Amino acid sequence: MSATPDSPLVGVVMGSRSDWDTMQHAAQKLEAFGIAHEVRVVSAHRTPDVLFDYAANAQQRGLRAIIAGAGGAAHLPGMLAAKTMVPVLGVPVQSRALNGLDSLLSIVQMPGGIPVATFAIGQAGATNAALFAAAMLAADRPEIAGALAAFRQRQTEDVAGSDDPRR
Amino acid sequence: MSATPDSPLVGVVMGSRSDWDTMQHAAQKLEAFGIAHEVRVVSAHRTPDVLFDYAANAQQRGLRAIIAGAGGAAHLPGMLAAKTMVPVLGVPVQSRALNGLDSLLSIVQMPGGIPVATFAIGQAGATNAALFAAAMLAADRPEIAGALAAFRQRQTEDVAGSDDPRR
Amino acid sequence: MSATPDSPLVGVVMGSRSDWDTMQHAAQKLEAFGIAHEVRVVSAHRTPDVLFDYAANAQQRGLRAIIAGAGGAAHLPGMLAAKTMVPVLGVPVQSRALNGLDSLLSIVQMPGGIPVATFAIGQAGATNAALFAAAMLAADRPEIAGALAAFRQRQTEDVAGSDDPRR
Amino acid sequence: MSATPDSPLVGVVMGSRSDWDTMQHAAQKLEAFGIAHEVRVVSAHRTPDVLFDYAANAQQRGLRAIIAGAGGAAHLPGMLAAKTMVPVLGVPVQSRALNGLDSLLSIVQMPGGIPVATFAIGQAGATNAALFAAAMLAADRPEIAGALAAFRQRQTEDVAGSDDPRR
Amino acid sequence: MSATPDSPLVGVVMGSRSDWDTMQHAAQKLEAFGIAHEVRVVSAHRTPDVLFDYAANAQQRGLRAIIAGAGGAAHLPGMLAAKTMVPVLGVPVQSRALNGLDSLLSIVQMPGGIPVATFAIGQAGATNAALFAAAMLAADRPEIAGALAAFRQRQTEDVAGSDDPRR
Amino acid sequence: MSATPDSPLVGVVMGSRSDWDTMQHAAQKLEAFGIAHEVRVVSAHRTPDVLFDYAANAQQRGLRAIIAGAGGAAHLPGMLAAKTMVPVLGVPVQSRALNGLDSLLSIVQMPGGIPVATFAIGQAGATNAALFAAAMLAADRPEIAGALAAFRQRQTEDVAGSDDPRR
Amino acid sequence: MSATPDSPLVGVVMGSRSDWDTMQHAAQKLEAFGIAHEVRVVSAHRTPDVLFDYAANAQQRGLRAIIAGAGGAAHLPGMLAAKTMVPVLGVPVQSRALNGLDSLLSIVQMPGGIPVATFAIGQAGATNAALFAAAMLAADRPEIAGALAAFRQRQTEDVAGSDDPRR
Amino acid sequence: MSATPDSPLVGVVMGSRSDWDTMQHAAQKLEAFGIAHEVRVVSAHRTPDVLFDYAANAQQRGLRAIIAGAGGAAHLPGMLAAKTMVPVLGVPVQSRALNGLDSLLSIVQMPGGIPVATFAIGQAGATNAALFAAAMLAADRPEIAGALAAFRQRQTEDVAGSDDPRR
Repeated sequence: MSATPDSPLVGVVMGSRSDWDTMQHAAQKLEAFGIAHEVRVVSAHRTPDVLFDYAANAQQRGLRAIIAGAGGAAHLPGMLAAKTMVPVLGVPVQSRALNGLDSLLSIVQMPGGIPVATFAIGQAGATNAALFAAAMLAADRPEIAGALAAFRQRQTEDVAGSDDPRR
Repeated sequence: MSATPDSPLVGVVMGSRSDWDTMQHAAQKLEAFGIAHEVRVVSAHRTPDVLFDYAANAQQRGLRAIIAGAGGAAHLPGMLAAKTMVPVLGVPVQSRALNGLDSLLSIVQMPGGIPVATFAIGQAGATNAALFAAAMLAADRPEIAGALAAFRQRQTEDVAGSDDPRR
Repeated sequence: MSATPDSPLVGVVMGSRSDWDTMQHAAQKLEAFGIAHEVRVVSAHRTPDVLFDYAANAQQRGLRAIIAGAGGAAHLPGMLAAKTMVPVLGVPVQSRALNGLDSLLSIVQMPGGIPVATFAIGQAGATNAALFAAAMLAADRPEIAGALAAFRQRQTEDVAGSDDPRR
Repeated sequence: MSATPDSPLVGVVMGSRSDWDTMQHAAQKLEAFGIAHEVRVVSAHRTPDVLFDYAANAQQRGLRAIIAGAGGAAHLPGMLAAKTMVPVLGVPVQSRALNGLDSLLSIVQMPGGIPVATFAIGQAGATNAALFAAAMLAADRPEIAGALAAFRQRQTEDVAGSDDPRR
Repeated sequence: MSATPDSPLVGVVMGSRSDWDTMQHAAQKLEAFGIAHEVRVVSAHRTPDVLFDYAANAQQRGLRAIIAGAGGAAHLPGMLAAKTMVPVLGVPVQSRALNGLDSLLSIVQMPGGIPVATFAIGQAGATNAALFAAAMLAADRPEIAGALAAFRQRQTEDVAGSDDPRR
Repeated sequence: MSATPDSPLVGVVMGSRSDWDTMQHAAQKLEAFGIAHEVRVVSAHRTPDVLFDYAANAQQRGLRAIIAGAGGAAHLPGMLAAKTMVPVLGVPVQSRALNGLDSLLSIVQMPGGIPVATFAIGQAGATNAALFAAAMLAADRPEIAGALAAFRQRQTEDVAGSDDPRR
Repeated sequence: MSATPDSPLVGVVMGSRSDWDTMQHAAQKLEAFGIAHEVRVVSAHRTPDVLFDYAANAQQRGLRAIIAGAGGAAHLPGMLAAKTMVPVLGVPVQSRALNGLDSLLSIVQMPGGIPVATFAIGQAGATNAALFAAAMLAADRPEIAGALAAFRQRQTEDVAGSDDPRR
Repeated sequence: MSATPDSPLVGVVMGSRSDWDTMQHAAQKLEAFGIAHEVRVVSAHRTPDVLFDYAANAQQRGLRAIIAGAGGAAHLPGMLAAKTMVPVLGVPVQSRALNGLDSLLSIVQMPGGIPVATFAIGQAGATNAALFAAAMLAADRPEIAGALAAFRQRQTEDVAGSDDPRR
């Protein structure tokens, strides 16, 4: 392991700059939990070699999870997973014509052998991928476990405190 | 942590006995990797209290992941996730009328705040959920990391060794 | 039965405040029919314990029906139904990416054993859930039967009176 | 009310004889709960006048609910609902080409004003429509409330008693 | 046949006033071809008796075709067809949540025995239903045959005359 | 008009021999009603010139309707309609992978200007196209009107006479 | 071959002028690569004879590929392919109601025997059809091969140079 | 170009041995046209390095087209296209749960910049990909042009010769 204390634990990657609108919600949650992370545009189709390098080096760089967002024929998460044993979390970005149904199926329907953990289409999926990464890391990082527990608690209280929607 | 060396690290749960045809593929992979696990039928709709207890106790029982399979209006994975911070891996079981599209959407389209890591419909999804659990555990269990690496290596060789489908 | 004359007969619950845009149409119809009701935000995923308590106490609190609206992986109606014998009426709220098809399938495709009566996606469904609740209550409450009959009559006349759309 | 003690409380109707494979599951549940019911083939398209008469007389004949199953362009439940204030419970029968997705949408997407309570495609939906009818009737029929409670209890125990699917 | 020279040959009916945006395209084409027609709002669900009367009298009133537009659980065309032998042409109106896919399936998937001739979702369908009615009437009305032939000719020339989209 | 008394009034065409399983139901109904017809395999893609000739000559050969069945990218009905003013009735044949949803959309979603009257996927659609053709012809052929009325009457009685599906 | 040095190598055709918004992206790419091309509106349904002539003459006019865009029941690409051996590249134009899913299925689901190479719905598909045509032509035109290689190189660098989406 | 007279012009690759049932139809057509080709199993997910090597060397090995079949999250065609300028023809293999709709969308919905020419789901698509490759090669190989023309001629005659499906 060459990871230093400040080196990123989670990589947030996306197929194009336009996916940032969605994927920033993953980055924000990681930020809020104090989880060191990096953000990169890596295109499965336009920069396949960068994708391969990124995935091939992920483990030795100390990444514990890669959150990958893509839309349409969304090959990024699956190809990262093909090249690393670091867990890959896939976020289907809402596409223009088919509203992300194509993105979802392209990510989730992986063949047996190479898993991609898939989350909801769009912002909710980006948020949840970050929360899931936090839950994975919480197993051996008490401070993340604490932050996650606090977030869950607060979230529950927020709903409970506003239980009449007319107010 | 009250977990003993032999206590299960992964729970494999499913909404009905008939889901076992699918979910056994998760159990087999965990078995093959030597990952201690338990198998249970827990119905979100018919035994909601059992579901809540199972989820509420998962962390202190030492579970590091719960693999949950369900079909149709598949509420089991999401409700487990609502009651525990242990990562929940959802497997959409192929349903009769809609071929698992309903199961998939019911599991993957979770709202922001409570993640369920979702895998492919059916057997491939069950297999991959187990592989993903192994990848999560590999971070601090070298023997699992080794078994997973060996599996991936073998899988690659199997394809490479049979690259002419006519033979 | 601990219900007082003024205690609510129908509960209108929803998974998040943003569902109120849709669910207010249920509340308005109940109001118009003079049916005592309550309105609550109860999230299956963020406040599961509140959900369980709400459902577990529904019968003894005198509720005769629960109208539950939710979007995406809409688990609220089904989990309420799992915890009470009070009839649950589900309203699929239109979701962002998949236009409520996910909400609809997550609510309607319940397994045999635990029913959720499901209505149309969005406003029409919220309206109709309230009308259905009125029809249920009409069996032993003549004043509701009368109000419902008058509404149906008026609705028929409204269409009949405007039968040329060009005027 | 002209209903005698033995007159049916629930009508089970279907668009064609071939729907009986599905709809018998509704009848069986009603039978098991001791709920007086009748079974009829009524086609919206081939016997529209019979449909109208059936619906128009339902209330005065003492029916408290109509369970209507149909497939394809499934107009039966909605047209019954248009002609009576008796609650109509719709069961989408699995169709040949589109697996019941057409039946489901034709039944559930009713416009605001005329509700049809819709259940799952196929056998599960037929079963659940009967359970829902029982829950409605349970409000003023303690013996049905008791039978339903016993069924729910037994169902929960059945799952709990078989919680290891490998046995 | 009690039809007078001026009595309508085609009825254009729709389930609600809001369908007029779509259905006016049918009326405009009939107008352009000089085909006597009438326009009516008839709701299958809110005015079922009006629907039955309209259909039952269509033949003796001299109608040669009924163009019926409806959205969602679109029962109007099918129920008209159930009550008359006059050819019914169905137009699926684009619905809010499901974009008219529900309307299309509810209209086109009629069971064997009662046909509804179905056209495209929305404006194109309304236009084409009118053109189809004209083609039917052309068989024994030379002036309509002539108008239709002229329209087809003009339409062909319009495309041919603008064959470079950049001009 | 060059049609002789025995020349066909209706053409039943299909894109491939394998569509005959479906389309024979159209031919049988025409036969039963004594409507002179012809049956031909005409492929939009493999015999486009035959298609064009068939359509171009349809009117002068005395055809009053063409029933065209096709599956997948089902271009036959639409291309016939592009080349003739004779009404074209389209039957979506159930396709292997997508169950006829592709056939249906390829036939029904015609642009404004060239109508194809579309019927249900598969056998029901073939049957109904023939019934619709009969209804069109009934306007000026009393013997067909009579046969159609008798069929409708018998069909109604058949349902009415078997209204208990358990017998 | 009657083609002169300046005669078009690629035809860009579309079913209606409104498709130009989409198809201009194909023309722009061809322009950028210096590939001689022509642009035409040819409607399968409104100008079928023009379509047949265009396809029948494509080969002898020296066309090496035809890029055809159409929406809804998109018959243009398939009918061109039926009348020529020149490779046809189909672009599904995004339709109003069904977002281009109908266009996609109408183009891609061609029966065995007559191929249409299909690309993504909308602008991406138009762009890619032109890139694919360039790749085909690159086999014997080094200058196109060079331009394509340069484009691919630049595209890769563009992504690589902007790999942090926050900048 | 290092290609020898006997070196393959077309590569037929597939993601798994089980895809051979489908992809053999591509190989058979190439065989029938006398087009030198090779057949290989290359998995995007299990042998990504082999995929990259195969694509990277395709051009210098003299391949003029790659026909790639895959099912589910079908990344093989798109990743080949990302690594070579040789035209890639994608064949969606029919998947178990979603019948190939997932395969189709994963292949066809490529982002602008990297095209994959996509064909129909299953056997028809495999056949047509081979026919399309032949049409591409026909531009500079008269013997292939001749074989393709003969095939098209024979295909047309076969349909024409069997135009009555009852014989």
